[in-house]
Amino acid sequence: MSNYIFVPIGVGLLAVAFAAYLASYVLRKDTGTPAMQKVSDAIFKGAMAFLNRQYRTIAALAVLAAIIVGLVLALLGTGDKISLGWHTAVAFLIGAFCSGVAGYIGMYVAVKSNSRTASAATRSLGEALMVSLRGGAVSGFLVVSLSLLGVTLVFTAYGGLTNPAVAPSLIVGFGFGASFVALFAQLGGGIYTKAADVGADLVGKVEAGIPEDDPRNPAVIADLVGDNVGDCAGRGADLFESTAAENIGAMILGVALYAATGNIGWILFPLVVRAFGLFASAVGLLWIRPSVVTEPDKAAGKDPGEIAMKQLNIGYFITCGISIIFIFLVSYLLLSGGNVTGTNSVPPWVWFGLAGTTGILLSIAFVYITQYYTAGTWRPVREIAAATLTGPATTIITGFAVAFECVALPVLAISAALGLSFFFGSQVHVHLVNNPGVINVGGIFGTAVATMGMLMSTAYILAMDTFGPITDNAGGITEMSGQAEAVRDITDALDGVGNTTKALTKGYGIGSAALAAFLLFSAYLDVLYSYGHKAAVYSVDLANIAVFVAALIGLTLIFFFSALAIRAVGAAAKRMIEEVRRQFRENPKIMAEDPADRVDPDYARCVDISTRGALRAMVLPGVIAVLTPVAIGTILGPQAEAGLLMVGTMGGIVVATFLNNGGGAWDNAKKYIEAGYLRVNEQGEMVDRLDPNGIVLGKKSEPHKAGVVGDTVGDPFKDTAGPSLHVLIKLLSTITLVLAPLYVALHPF
Amino acid sequence: MSNYIFVPIGVGLLAVAFAAYLASYVLRKDTGTPAMQKVSDAIFKGAMAFLNRQYRTIAALAVLAAIIVGLVLALLGTGDKISLGWHTAVAFLIGAFCSGVAGYIGMYVAVKSNSRTASAATRSLGEALMVSLRGGAVSGFLVVSLSLLGVTLVFTAYGGLTNPAVAPSLIVGFGFGASFVALFAQLGGGIYTKAADVGADLVGKVEAGIPEDDPRNPAVIADLVGDNVGDCAGRGADLFESTAAENIGAMILGVALYAATGNIGWILFPLVVRAFGLFASAVGLLWIRPSVVTEPDKAAGKDPGEIAMKQLNIGYFITCGISIIFIFLVSYLLLSGGNVTGTNSVPPWVWFGLAGTTGILLSIAFVYITQYYTAGTWRPVREIAAATLTGPATTIITGFAVAFECVALPVLAISAALGLSFFFGSQVHVHLVNNPGVINVGGIFGTAVATMGMLMSTAYILAMDTFGPITDNAGGITEMSGQAEAVRDITDALDGVGNTTKALTKGYGIGSAALAAFLLFSAYLDVLYSYGHKAAVYSVDLANIAVFVAALIGLTLIFFFSALAIRAVGAAAKRMIEEVRRQFRENPKIMAEDPADRVDPDYARCVDISTRGALRAMVLPGVIAVLTPVAIGTILGPQAEAGLLMVGTMGGIVVATFLNNGGGAWDNAKKYIEAGYLRVNEQGEMVDRLDPNGIVLGKKSEPHKAGVVGDTVGDPFKDTAGPSLHVLIKLLSTITLVLAPLYVALHPF
Repeated sequence: MSNYIFVPIGVGLLAVAFAAYLASYVLRKDTGTPAMQKVSDAIFKGAMAFLNRQYRTIAALAVLAAIIVGLVLALLGTGDKISLGWHTAVAFLIGAFCSGVAGYIGMYVAVKSNSRTASAATRSLGEALMVSLRGGAVSGFLVVSLSLLGVTLVFTAYGGLTNPAVAPSLIVGFGFGASFVALFAQLGGGIYTKAADVGADLVGKVEAGIPEDDPRNPAVIADLVGDNVGDCAGRGADLFESTAAENIGAMILGVALYAATGNIGWILFPLVVRAFGLFASAVGLLWIRPSVVTEPDKAAGKDPGEIAMKQLNIGYFITCGISIIFIFLVSYLLLSGGNVTGTNSVPPWVWFGLAGTTGILLSIAFVYITQYYTAGTWRPVREIAAATLTGPATTIITGFAVAFECVALPVLAISAALGLSFFFGSQVHVHLVNNPGVINVGGIFGTAVATMGMLMSTAYILAMDTFGPITDNAGGITEMSGQAEAVRDITDALDGVGNTTKALTKGYGIGSAALAAFLLFSAYLDVLYSYGHKAAVYSVDLANIAVFVAALIGLTLIFFFSALAIRAVGAAAKRMIEEVRRQFRENPKIMAEDPADRVDPDYARCVDISTRGALRAMVLPGVIAVLTPVAIGTILGPQAEAGLLMVGTMGGIVVATFLNNGGGAWDNAKKYIEAGYLRVNEQGEMVDRLDPNGIVLGKKSEPHKAGVVGDTVGDPFKDTAGPSLHVLIKLLSTITLVLAPLYVALHPF
Repeated sequence: MSNYIFVPIGVGLLAVAFAAYLASYVLRKDTGTPAMQKVSDAIFKGAMAFLNRQYRTIAALAVLAAIIVGLVLALLGTGDKISLGWHTAVAFLIGAFCSGVAGYIGMYVAVKSNSRTASAATRSLGEALMVSLRGGAVSGFLVVSLSLLGVTLVFTAYGGLTNPAVAPSLIVGFGFGASFVALFAQLGGGIYTKAADVGADLVGKVEAGIPEDDPRNPAVIADLVGDNVGDCAGRGADLFESTAAENIGAMILGVALYAATGNIGWILFPLVVRAFGLFASAVGLLWIRPSVVTEPDKAAGKDPGEIAMKQLNIGYFITCGISIIFIFLVSYLLLSGGNVTGTNSVPPWVWFGLAGTTGILLSIAFVYITQYYTAGTWRPVREIAAATLTGPATTIITGFAVAFECVALPVLAISAALGLSFFFGSQVHVHLVNNPGVINVGGIFGTAVATMGMLMSTAYILAMDTFGPITDNAGGITEMSGQAEAVRDITDALDGVGNTTKALTKGYGIGSAALAAFLLFSAYLDVLYSYGHKAAVYSVDLANIAVFVAALIGLTLIFFFSALAIRAVGAAAKRMIEEVRRQFRENPKIMAEDPADRVDPDYARCVDISTRGALRAMVLPGVIAVLTPVAIGTILGPQAEAGLLMVGTMGGIVVATFLNNGGGAWDNAKKYIEAGYLRVNEQGEMVDRLDPNGIVLGKKSEPHKAGVVGDTVGDPFKDTAGPSLHVLIKLLSTITLVLAPLYVALHPF
């Protein structure tokens, strides 16, 4: 059974090769006209400059953190302290390093793909789609494969094959390192992108009255850079961490089953599933090829956006379909052993296959729920669009009603998936050797299998996500280099599709984090149990006042962290606004009437302001996120820490959904108006969006201005605070797992 | 010891007499000029018409709920079902009735006090303060005394003195009835007031450009009515329920100590403390008399608002000071018994006195924290005011950063108070007869004593709260009846003070609810334990998947309920906006240039629209709030219900604070601008608020418009959703307590 370790190693290496193939495919494409190249080069330079400086800061913080964690565990931990300390510190650094490499290369290719996409769009939709999606897939496959290889190799190096019961606990440092990097990458990227965006919009669009992506706007390049560092590098680090942390958590849960069965397959299961998921994602991705893409024809009703979205959806469904087959297969191959039986003689692998399928179906449910709340086709966005008729105040109020409301369906879906996968898992009866007798091992492993199932499509989802900033940039490049309308139609359509896929990725991210919460939490309790073997650790009792207080503080941390993230955007945006205003004031030639008299604004300075603002502002929220759980665990003990972890995670799920979908709905309500769908009758009442007698209230109308206010408010919600919360809740898990020996040592049972 | 039952009965009756005295004091005052009376009569009619219709609806719902609850318990409960069923149903109806009576009479006097306050303001600040505060105190003392009398008498009637161990569980219906009424009263009132306010502001102030409280605005009377039904009737019902539910919860906790000591004093303690609290509140209130009020003199720097606020603060500190003495005294008198000893031979009453003092100090901490976040003197409001310089979007974003941030300090204060009072209580060692051995009875009772201490000042706090709508209305009446500027100065200043006291009451309400959460939760576990005596009920284990899912749903309920409440305001406001626009359009004489040509708008119709809108919109959120916990408890069982209760309560505390303080900060940022404190230099950068060289950006400036948007967004947050959440979290407790026998019957341990 140990030989299965070669599956993740082999597939991981193949996936790296596949990413290299995709990169070379993209890089071989032509880079477009000189005008396109000029814009693209400016974006490339800005993005790389930011990434270099950001990673230097993060590296310094990471080395510091690794040393502190290693020393603390070596001095104050439990068990074989010295070994624990250095293993954790080294794993931490490897995790941090792999996350950085995946982010760096992925973004390198992404910012090389934008002008190539713009150039391809001058030829055909099919080619433009191919370049942008494959460019995005480089990031997707690198993130998942490096995470998989990293966990697998560290596990093996730490003696996982000879001593499987101990190794998973030693490698938790890898997950912590990954989430540490992710927290700062997402925070820094999120602050950068929104400071630039808000600054560019408020002065450029609102005050100076120039269109989006206009080359006269000094902040335009910073804005285009921001899309990459936020959505590509930030989200990549986020999902790198997800896949790493959730693999490790599931491996820890597998230890109990390994002990019962002597079968290492239970521990290797997450790695093998992930490998098969990479394979399924590659098939889904490769299915999308030029020959299946119909070229658009507006007259014949063939909308380019609809064509592209349909292909992406087909690819996703193919990935999911193959994943369902694979999850049964891997369960069949790995999850067996003498002491494990299923209810009604149905073999265990069938029950676990069903649990995995539940997770895959949850990912599809999230796609639809997110679309319902953020796409113009349904009630919520239309409600906000209608509210713009009475001004910005009602626009914001209605958006908040939507944001508060949109939490319910995802939570019900998660609850159902958790309950169902737990039920399927608990149909498998495990006869444990040292049974603490208080937990349902099968049920908990069922939720882990569901999480693994859901995460099989991560590489595909991440390809769709990075597709977003590439097409957004391609749109900007097309606009700034003055291409023909037919080209703009294609890039605009792809940009719109990219907005949808970015929203979906956030939904997917939060859904998988929620599903994983129970597994990570249970892994933490397993780790606590491994020190001292007291069954009492399995109870996290809210009736205990320390647990209660810690839980309340966990929930509050979510709110306070959101405040800091939003405030950071405000502070950085303020500096950007002042700079843009200064340039317009001091250099009137930027806005000269005759285009021949115009000079370029100083883009680099705006890029620099965003960079410095983001790097400065990311530190405080990051440090508070790290120190709060450490303080609670140290002062109030491991059970209270579990309370903080659980209720903090619940709060993170709910608040992130609130922020992501609220922001997305405002964004799309504005786009709904811009598309000419807001129509009224003579009394000013809203009529059907296609009513030919309706008066169209489009760009520059008062409702549109109110819509822009809503969109701007939503920006830091959906692109800074919300995504950072995804990372925060996983950081809570990994930090808790890593420091469990410290808490146990300080508060022995 | 049983004789102490006469303390709450006697003091309760005295407090009713005191309320009658205060009412007669106010009603004997002159009602002002005919112009004042005309406005006041219109408000009176509108308010009473709404209250009559609202209470009719609530009464129908309450009778239905009483029958269902009684039948369900009689058929499906545990123990002596029939007795349980009818006792609960009758107690429910009595609780609902008392709450209604307190709200009705209190509001009757409040709406009779407004023109009297306006008239008194023509004579002196001292007299105006006296009339408005005493008018408000009628509501305050009635609410607390009727709650106290109701609980005491039902307890006695249900055999509390002969069979003290059983009676507290039988009277929980009283608390449920009170919270049922409070939920609908607060929701209906909150929707009413904000629909009218938003409608009046958006069409009147923004579109038509007429000032606040202008008689030409058709919605102006509805707006003035709204302040009463929201702040007076709604908050009165809220605190009626608090005092009732928390008394009952503490009495249930006292049962265990009664069992250990044979001393009924442990059960009577909350009632006696409350009686002494009424006494302390009366002293604090009566301290404020005309002879201590300096008359204002602007030239000499004697600001009327500062003078009034100072008196209110002195009265509050007197109340708190006396309360500290009383809580030690009552602990000394009642909390004793052979099996109870204190650490280091310090007697138990000292430890409990310290716990009670902790609660009283928490109430003072909340006063300061709330002021920090909502008053223009400190950073948060100024930050929002500064953000108005860059428009509505940054105003909203900054307000959200403040709203997310402001949760932290209150939670830390609550955590500290909970921990400290638990610590003091746990220094008292109780040797239980049937000790389940898993809970710290003394510690939990310590948190109950802290809650009782905090709630001693409820009558005083509620007097300050109802003072708010009275002075707000007096300001409106002064404005509409065209009084001299000196008179307007007084009523405006009192109105400003009223805004502060209203915010404080909300902070107090949420703080006491948070402190009480642990006690109510523990009471629920005691009730569960009383059925079957299984120690396992005392563990509410988040590692159990049913508890986890229920907890997540509890948190989601808070968000979903907020969505419905905010949406309801939007829907009702929309109808109001349409009506005001219609009146301006169809009846141009309302806005005639020459005042002699003007006709009055149709106020009654706007009042009617608010009334119908509020009554219609309050039902759905209310029903969902009631049914969700019932569904979870029925399906997932009593432990899961406890998870929902706890995490739902945490969510309610955090989200309500977010909504209340966020809304309050926006409101006061607008007022900060209106007061002329927003000043900039020639570069447009903000300077000190008193900088004589600063350019004042006041009313009608662009930043002011942005400030109005923020204020409008905050309206449904702070006056509808936020306060309704206070009620919701206590409803979760009472509904859970009442239906515990059902859950136990369906899910036996």
